Amino acid sequence: MEINLVSDTITKPTPEMLQYMFNAVVGDDVYKQDPTVIELEAKVAALFGMEAGLFFPSGTMANQTAIKLHTQPGEQLIADKYAHVYNYEGGGVSFNSGVSCCLLNGNRGMITASQVKLAINDPEFYHSPLTSLVCVENTTNKGGGACYELDDLRQIKQVCEEHNLKFHLDGARIWNALVAKNQDPKEFGKLFDTISVCLSKGLGAPIGSVLLADKKTIHRALRIRKILGGGMRQVGYLAAAGIYALDHNIERLAEDHRRAKELASVLQQKDWVASVEPVETNILIFTLTPQVSEAQLIEKLKQKNILISSMGQGKLRIVTHLDYREVMHTYVIETLEKLAI
Amino acid sequence: MEINLVSDTITKPTPEMLQYMFNAVVGDDVYKQDPTVIELEAKVAALFGMEAGLFFPSGTMANQTAIKLHTQPGEQLIADKYAHVYNYEGGGVSFNSGVSCCLLNGNRGMITASQVKLAINDPEFYHSPLTSLVCVENTTNKGGGACYELDDLRQIKQVCEEHNLKFHLDGARIWNALVAKNQDPKEFGKLFDTISVCLSKGLGAPIGSVLLADKKTIHRALRIRKILGGGMRQVGYLAAAGIYALDHNIERLAEDHRRAKELASVLQQKDWVASVEPVETNILIFTLTPQVSEAQLIEKLKQKNILISSMGQGKLRIVTHLDYREVMHTYVIETLEKLAI
Amino acid sequence: MEINLVSDTITKPTPEMLQYMFNAVVGDDVYKQDPTVIELEAKVAALFGMEAGLFFPSGTMANQTAIKLHTQPGEQLIADKYAHVYNYEGGGVSFNSGVSCCLLNGNRGMITASQVKLAINDPEFYHSPLTSLVCVENTTNKGGGACYELDDLRQIKQVCEEHNLKFHLDGARIWNALVAKNQDPKEFGKLFDTISVCLSKGLGAPIGSVLLADKKTIHRALRIRKILGGGMRQVGYLAAAGIYALDHNIERLAEDHRRAKELASVLQQKDWVASVEPVETNILIFTLTPQVSEAQLIEKLKQKNILISSMGQGKLRIVTHLDYREVMHTYVIETLEKLAI
Amino acid sequence: MEINLVSDTITKPTPEMLQYMFNAVVGDDVYKQDPTVIELEAKVAALFGMEAGLFFPSGTMANQTAIKLHTQPGEQLIADKYAHVYNYEGGGVSFNSGVSCCLLNGNRGMITASQVKLAINDPEFYHSPLTSLVCVENTTNKGGGACYELDDLRQIKQVCEEHNLKFHLDGARIWNALVAKNQDPKEFGKLFDTISVCLSKGLGAPIGSVLLADKKTIHRALRIRKILGGGMRQVGYLAAAGIYALDHNIERLAEDHRRAKELASVLQQKDWVASVEPVETNILIFTLTPQVSEAQLIEKLKQKNILISSMGQGKLRIVTHLDYREVMHTYVIETLEKLAI
Repeated sequence: MEINLVSDTITKPTPEMLQYMFNAVVGDDVYKQDPTVIELEAKVAALFGMEAGLFFPSGTMANQTAIKLHTQPGEQLIADKYAHVYNYEGGGVSFNSGVSCCLLNGNRGMITASQVKLAINDPEFYHSPLTSLVCVENTTNKGGGACYELDDLRQIKQVCEEHNLKFHLDGARIWNALVAKNQDPKEFGKLFDTISVCLSKGLGAPIGSVLLADKKTIHRALRIRKILGGGMRQVGYLAAAGIYALDHNIERLAEDHRRAKELASVLQQKDWVASVEPVETNILIFTLTPQVSEAQLIEKLKQKNILISSMGQGKLRIVTHLDYREVMHTYVIETLEKLAI
Repeated sequence: MEINLVSDTITKPTPEMLQYMFNAVVGDDVYKQDPTVIELEAKVAALFGMEAGLFFPSGTMANQTAIKLHTQPGEQLIADKYAHVYNYEGGGVSFNSGVSCCLLNGNRGMITASQVKLAINDPEFYHSPLTSLVCVENTTNKGGGACYELDDLRQIKQVCEEHNLKFHLDGARIWNALVAKNQDPKEFGKLFDTISVCLSKGLGAPIGSVLLADKKTIHRALRIRKILGGGMRQVGYLAAAGIYALDHNIERLAEDHRRAKELASVLQQKDWVASVEPVETNILIFTLTPQVSEAQLIEKLKQKNILISSMGQGKLRIVTHLDYREVMHTYVIETLEKLAI
Repeated sequence: MEINLVSDTITKPTPEMLQYMFNAVVGDDVYKQDPTVIELEAKVAALFGMEAGLFFPSGTMANQTAIKLHTQPGEQLIADKYAHVYNYEGGGVSFNSGVSCCLLNGNRGMITASQVKLAINDPEFYHSPLTSLVCVENTTNKGGGACYELDDLRQIKQVCEEHNLKFHLDGARIWNALVAKNQDPKEFGKLFDTISVCLSKGLGAPIGSVLLADKKTIHRALRIRKILGGGMRQVGYLAAAGIYALDHNIERLAEDHRRAKELASVLQQKDWVASVEPVETNILIFTLTPQVSEAQLIEKLKQKNILISSMGQGKLRIVTHLDYREVMHTYVIETLEKLAI
Repeated sequence: MEINLVSDTITKPTPEMLQYMFNAVVGDDVYKQDPTVIELEAKVAALFGMEAGLFFPSGTMANQTAIKLHTQPGEQLIADKYAHVYNYEGGGVSFNSGVSCCLLNGNRGMITASQVKLAINDPEFYHSPLTSLVCVENTTNKGGGACYELDDLRQIKQVCEEHNLKFHLDGARIWNALVAKNQDPKEFGKLFDTISVCLSKGLGAPIGSVLLADKKTIHRALRIRKILGGGMRQVGYLAAAGIYALDHNIERLAEDHRRAKELASVLQQKDWVASVEPVETNILIFTLTPQVSEAQLIEKLKQKNILISSMGQGKLRIVTHLDYREVMHTYVIETLEKLAI
């Protein structure tokens, strides 16, 4: 059997989660008549102390809807150069919203208030796009699972307020940040106009994200979700998985983080590893010495039934998750310790 | 318990379908690693004799993707004035594709080759939008479940070929048409560049549509689905419901049609009914005499636990479906027969 | 020499207008430093009693900017089926603004308040586009130069206010309406959120339109004009032509109207003419009896050095203008009187 | 009188150019009946050895049209971080084309083939936007008037061909490059799919740019120009200025370049100047020592009737042009030599 460390999106529901899904009471969510979806949306909103939530088939759609909610075509958002919304949503920022990105050179995917401030276009200089939104990602995906300090986010929020900008959190892996930093989700709820959270990465649900905001904004989001084609019928089965995951799978993320750190320790000692980025959560990024190619290592590990992936430009990525259990971990550690190239 | 005749989208999976769903083998469909989704896509494509299929979270997204595949911003599509893509997809034709609609005054939602021909803008007259696509709906929703003759579609196809237009079928209720007219789906596969079919209306699956086309077009569709946010993870659970529905729920649509016709017969005899549109499938549209308001009838039926809906402009709609069973039908018939207003 | 009755856009500046253009003081209008442009914008705004104006290279861009100012992508505007913004702006409503059109079956291009009211989508029913704008054209181009009564416009305005809709006037030929109906432009300024007026049709300037609105809206319009590429440098030469035209060429439109009516009278007596639409201003639309084809008549007149054009679907159009002088008119009248087919 | 060194866009026609403009034979260019426009378009196309040209009211619209011609929404273009299309066209790349920018860290606004190669997204990895276009600017505006070697452009062209990318030249100041490097415009015509050239900067015409391409592409451009609102009527007056400028004002650009270099020499000797960027053409960028603020210098020069402008981030810009004559130059040199701060 293969041990898949490519992404935390590949997890499959446990029998208990499946059982819970199977028993869900459902309705037609396009008419907002699915009680399980309504329960999930309220549950996530309450967790973050926000007014309302809306279920989406993907984190991409939740993010894209948020960006549309906060912008008019021609405007510009500010984000880190590694931002998922810029790099991995198919060019959706421009396609769906007609918006351009001003990308900052952050630290492991994290940007600062002073960087944001410098990047805001003068709103009276109409030759340049009007800056209207700041997006941060927490934890950062391409930045290696790094997490923000709340104070750093508060400072960005202040810049947003001073310049009349909206503030969106791509919280695809916010659960990992909450656990790693022992933070209160309500502190995030206070800072952001919109937050997208994902149920199908660390939490292990099969499908779905929830967008959080105030009631009026979520009411507008419903219309955008419809236009993008995200209105679905008996979604309660999927929402149930999310409810189960919130109740059972948050605290255990600490184990994913421990394992990622242990893998990092092993890799740091290998002579074919050039550098290992700091590990804060469940993502581990490292580079190889010039003698070894990425393809070579990926193939070598594949022969040992261990799958990892390349991020391009010399970087390799390992992601730990719910389906990567202790017995597998022991095996991977041993394999890496022995691995000579 | 309420008898819901508002829409065929409200059906819930039977225990057998649910069982089949939760036994599905799943994977991460964003990486195209979910075998059940792949099986469903191939199964539907084979049914229509087309090369490939792609699963979508909604019929709206399948239609919107098809329109985007066939057009550039600024171009124009031709459709009936009742078309779902124009009326009920949130303005998505313009939002997602920057395309305008030239609406024809069809017969119960069905348009003819000669109407299409007259509506095509001269491609050299660049002041008017370039016509590039024709969309038909079969059965027609707002047109009362009417179905096309294959020959009429073949004539439209010929106009499309003569004028270099693409041809899309919104087959949200194509299964009803196939059963009502005893048509071969492969005949549709021969005529259209893209076909969207829905699994969650007459077929009774909880969620999902499939878009059909040639392989190259579906490859491009994958990118558009991603941009719109329709890429999902362990979708096999939903796809399994579709597979089950295709195997078990097509032929039984004839019963929905019979019941809709029987309801029409009863309504035709009521003195408070002004007119009943011809019933071909599972949708029944009727109007009231001036003495009775729509709200009045809807309320009166609701007191009898029967839910129906208004389509605006004096029209009422009844839709029969999988969860509307014989015992309910008998009760509704009796209730209508007795109903005095 | 040819007598061109195809359009009033083909007029060329008189020597006096050219002289006036030639002497204009100019500057860089992108930096808003061209005094002649500023003078023209203020002059037109004052005429209509509106706060501010902005020069555009075309009426299409002025209209498209107005539509963008009033809408978000996905929304819908209401207009007559003959509307220039829908038919002759290249599909720009959808391309530039992502907006769809709900087209009404008006009378000679003019719509009524009750038609508008019925066409507004329920803002809570998010499956349909949100209605946010009403556009009227005065005089109507494809409607044959018909002009609105002010009271009819006031009633539409009231519907707009009741439903929170913006109201735009495509005044490409508003000067003809003002003269024909002896109306005060300030009455129009009171009714509309934006008005576009054209300098290069009846007024005889070579290029340009002006968009009118309140100051804040014009400030936003500057940004949209920039995005569309309508910011130009030493535009004063063109603006000067507009100033000259406003001072010298408005009242004389009455002659164009008289000539168009006289041509209508002659045509009405021809046995090869099936019908002549009522003539209110400088546009004359007529149809032929089945024995004569449009191409035949156009060719026959061309041989007599008279150019007219077809509007498609059996309609022919004659437009009188500044360069169609009395001596030509006498010749055309005589030619038509004699013309046997 | 003020000596304006803010931009080369502020030039006004000489009496000779004005005379030539107002003697132009004009027609309605929307019907493609203006002989002077046709002459200009052919003249510029011939200069670059390209098939056809199209007149635009601005360089922004010419660039935006080119980008639209080469892309579909959601795709990505590659350009330098200083690119005019990204920074100074109001966000039009995303607004008009739904396209995002991948910005490279070039040298004074110039990018290399190897940078381009690394920036191309894998076309099979559909999570990232499809790369479809490379845009270069020559000379570079924000890069300080730097000009490419033809060989460097040829290498970029080769990468474009290998990866199926289109190649656009924003030639707003191409005339300066041709003169400074003594290059043949036909060599540029061979390399690019589209070239935009400006008539109203160094050449001194009041308004207008021309887009060059093959005939088929220009035919498509006509439709996009219409949609954006760039179709104008009697444009011959403006086109005539362009013809005059091409015949009289190209070679004299060498004087603008000499003067800019002479100004650079003076500035290099001032103790309040921190650095002066290399001067190749008519743009001179320099920075100040920390003791002097930009506002201070700008104000000081303004008191001497010399206008220059800030580019933000500590950079000041001087642009020489047709209206900056030798007598003014002598005065500015003297003033700078004496200037103590």
